[in-house]
Amino acid sequence: MQNVSLLVDLYELTMAEAYFRYKPRTKATFDLFVRDLPPSRSYLVAAGLQDSLDYLMRLRFGPDDIAYLRKMKVFSPEFLRYLASFRFKGDVWALPEGTVCFAQEPLLRVTGSLIEAQIVETFLLNTINLQTMIASKASRVICASKGKKVYDFSLRRTHGSEAGIKVARSSYLAGFDGTANVLAGKLYRIPVVGTMAHSFVMSFKHELESFNAYAQTFPAQTILLVDTYDTKKGIENAVKIGLALKKKGYRLQGIRLDSGNIAYLSKLARHMLDKAGLSDARIIASGNLDEFRIKDLLARDACVDSFGVGTNMGTSIDAPALDVIYKISEVTDEKGDFLPTMKLSSAKVTYPGRKQVFRISDKKGRYLRDVIALEDERIAGKPLLQQVVSRGRLVYRFPSLKKIREYASSDLAGFDEGLRQVYSAYRYPVVIGERLKALRDSLSSALAHRQ
Amino acid sequence: MQNVSLLVDLYELTMAEAYFRYKPRTKATFDLFVRDLPPSRSYLVAAGLQDSLDYLMRLRFGPDDIAYLRKMKVFSPEFLRYLASFRFKGDVWALPEGTVCFAQEPLLRVTGSLIEAQIVETFLLNTINLQTMIASKASRVICASKGKKVYDFSLRRTHGSEAGIKVARSSYLAGFDGTANVLAGKLYRIPVVGTMAHSFVMSFKHELESFNAYAQTFPAQTILLVDTYDTKKGIENAVKIGLALKKKGYRLQGIRLDSGNIAYLSKLARHMLDKAGLSDARIIASGNLDEFRIKDLLARDACVDSFGVGTNMGTSIDAPALDVIYKISEVTDEKGDFLPTMKLSSAKVTYPGRKQVFRISDKKGRYLRDVIALEDERIAGKPLLQQVVSRGRLVYRFPSLKKIREYASSDLAGFDEGLRQVYSAYRYPVVIGERLKALRDSLSSALAHRQ
Repeated sequence: MQNVSLLVDLYELTMAEAYFRYKPRTKATFDLFVRDLPPSRSYLVAAGLQDSLDYLMRLRFGPDDIAYLRKMKVFSPEFLRYLASFRFKGDVWALPEGTVCFAQEPLLRVTGSLIEAQIVETFLLNTINLQTMIASKASRVICASKGKKVYDFSLRRTHGSEAGIKVARSSYLAGFDGTANVLAGKLYRIPVVGTMAHSFVMSFKHELESFNAYAQTFPAQTILLVDTYDTKKGIENAVKIGLALKKKGYRLQGIRLDSGNIAYLSKLARHMLDKAGLSDARIIASGNLDEFRIKDLLARDACVDSFGVGTNMGTSIDAPALDVIYKISEVTDEKGDFLPTMKLSSAKVTYPGRKQVFRISDKKGRYLRDVIALEDERIAGKPLLQQVVSRGRLVYRFPSLKKIREYASSDLAGFDEGLRQVYSAYRYPVVIGERLKALRDSLSSALAHRQ
Repeated sequence: MQNVSLLVDLYELTMAEAYFRYKPRTKATFDLFVRDLPPSRSYLVAAGLQDSLDYLMRLRFGPDDIAYLRKMKVFSPEFLRYLASFRFKGDVWALPEGTVCFAQEPLLRVTGSLIEAQIVETFLLNTINLQTMIASKASRVICASKGKKVYDFSLRRTHGSEAGIKVARSSYLAGFDGTANVLAGKLYRIPVVGTMAHSFVMSFKHELESFNAYAQTFPAQTILLVDTYDTKKGIENAVKIGLALKKKGYRLQGIRLDSGNIAYLSKLARHMLDKAGLSDARIIASGNLDEFRIKDLLARDACVDSFGVGTNMGTSIDAPALDVIYKISEVTDEKGDFLPTMKLSSAKVTYPGRKQVFRISDKKGRYLRDVIALEDERIAGKPLLQQVVSRGRLVYRFPSLKKIREYASSDLAGFDEGLRQVYSAYRYPVVIGERLKALRDSLSSALAHRQ
């Protein structure tokens, strides 16, 4: 990624200049959270922290950036000089990647000068939105798949190359088994998988000829796409190849079904493969799959061993954005003391003060409820927000992606089974701490006098 | 952007190796097109060509890429040597960016060796999908806005940073007036705009104090966000600032409404501003806007001068992916002659042969219909696909983004007014040429014998 310091909405910088002039020493805390979950989501899987912290640690305005800003004729020379030596010096608390979380719970909490906390808003929102949205959608796909393997096939339809790479990482983090995206495999050591396309079959005179060419080239890694022409005949041809490979001491890895009645065709294929003694050839399904389709296929006893999931997961198609926001919750007064604040405008009220999320479990470790409370409220639960940056210094050791993936899976397992249903009426209880509630009530009336 | 040569689905490379072994001299043509339009779209605006061609011209597999592929233990040393010296040497025909187009019409046509045409599939699909999808959505927003100014405010919710930059470019191309995204402004010389956030107002003791600080800092560029507390009082405070600025010889640029009943509040604000002699202060609306909301606001006579459009446009929220595909349409035989081919599998039949899109106009230049035909079919219309790459060499001069934007606007104006309606039952006629139709029919039966 190129230098992303200018990857901000202009107003972050104009506000920063006004702060620079009028409130250079004022500090504030901002919460980054999702206001409401999309209708078809009952939880989120936090993701995007690593890229967020990489950004904060490396944020610099280079000579080129400053030159562009100067040309805009909006900013003062003093402010541009300040930007040229800008470093993020604030504190950040965050939910570790892979944490299951809910609406209103801060995923990130930034405390610093008003200027720096404001400048980083756009990038943090963008990063957490994409990765948390995808990890959350992917997690649903995994729940629907009931232990079958699931692979990311979305690169051709993600919103650009960078999104493709982040989708591969976020879905793997949530529990996917691999991706077709080679670059993501290289960057994140994610297992990379692949089969063949219809164009491959079509570029040969006969389907069998195309299968043969592939099997000769990759005898140990052959998965045959059987639905380019007539699917039943395609399976017959795959069986021929499977038997030929067997003779040479290899194993047909599997076949792929990408269209038609997958439930029916997969049973037919299983039957034909088994009958030919090719029981170890797997059946891979793809084509517009998502958690709804997969649940349906498994309910109809489809004989599918693994799923290739593309567009619907990679764009989070039923909820392609989260209602993720970044709201000020406290600000210092003249003496430097933090005072809680909140937004009052219609239907968009927020919670004031420096907050923590506590997760309450029963004796067996099953999660009972979360409490969003003031940081210093006494709640008998596990605090979820961890400090990751202190005065601009990284104080967090990133777990490996594999570890994050294990954590995501074990964290999700701690919830009531209802949470993991594709069509779920279950709502995990998230409550507001007593002192936070009282603070919000008292502040509501006080703030009405600010105009 | 880093080296994107590995930004491919693995199967493109495995197929390429099989071609390398079995069909090294075979050539083919692929069409990149959108199979069906999303339900709420009646046209597309082509975008993404510039990035696609940049990719094709610069595609190289570096030592690092080759080393990673070698470690996968899938590819032969001969094929990896071939990849190390790979250059795209094919021909490309394309619709110029900004062209209004429809389902089934090739946006891009690639002719080259099977190997090279296959390897580039993933990146081309990814690039054209994102940019065409956004330009098409943005074009609808512009049609709904009836000449009011429209700005891209989507960066915080686009799918990553790269998507944010491409959304700014694609929406500007389609006719937006600017963006809040500073980096996109720098990269593409797009006008950059900005106001202030609620947190800015909240970080001061009183709203008026925050307005004052901003107006003092940017006396010539002040737009005040008036809905943090009570909107009517917010407008009153904005009027005070406007009058103070006027005294000093400046002009309040405007106010922004981001919540509540925008139709009502905008009329109230207009009335209050006019009454105070601030008729030249504009009213900007934002907050979950899209073509549907904007049409509704204007139908209710909202006094809005410009719209800030974010998430719904920047994620193409009602259609966050196009059904964009890349299908083989011809392939050479042993003698090197191109033979048409097509896909037969259920409900996914494609059109064979090397195609051109012809646009038929009446005497006044109004578009009557498009004809998708064989390239050498005689059709009395304007051929839309232009050659952009010849034997690997760029033979196209990119127009400036400004020129593309003008072309997009004038091309759209050539269609029946029905096309530009937000709720449109109008369907522009796209027909298939006689010879292409006949070819498809005869090929359907011939191909059934390929198994």
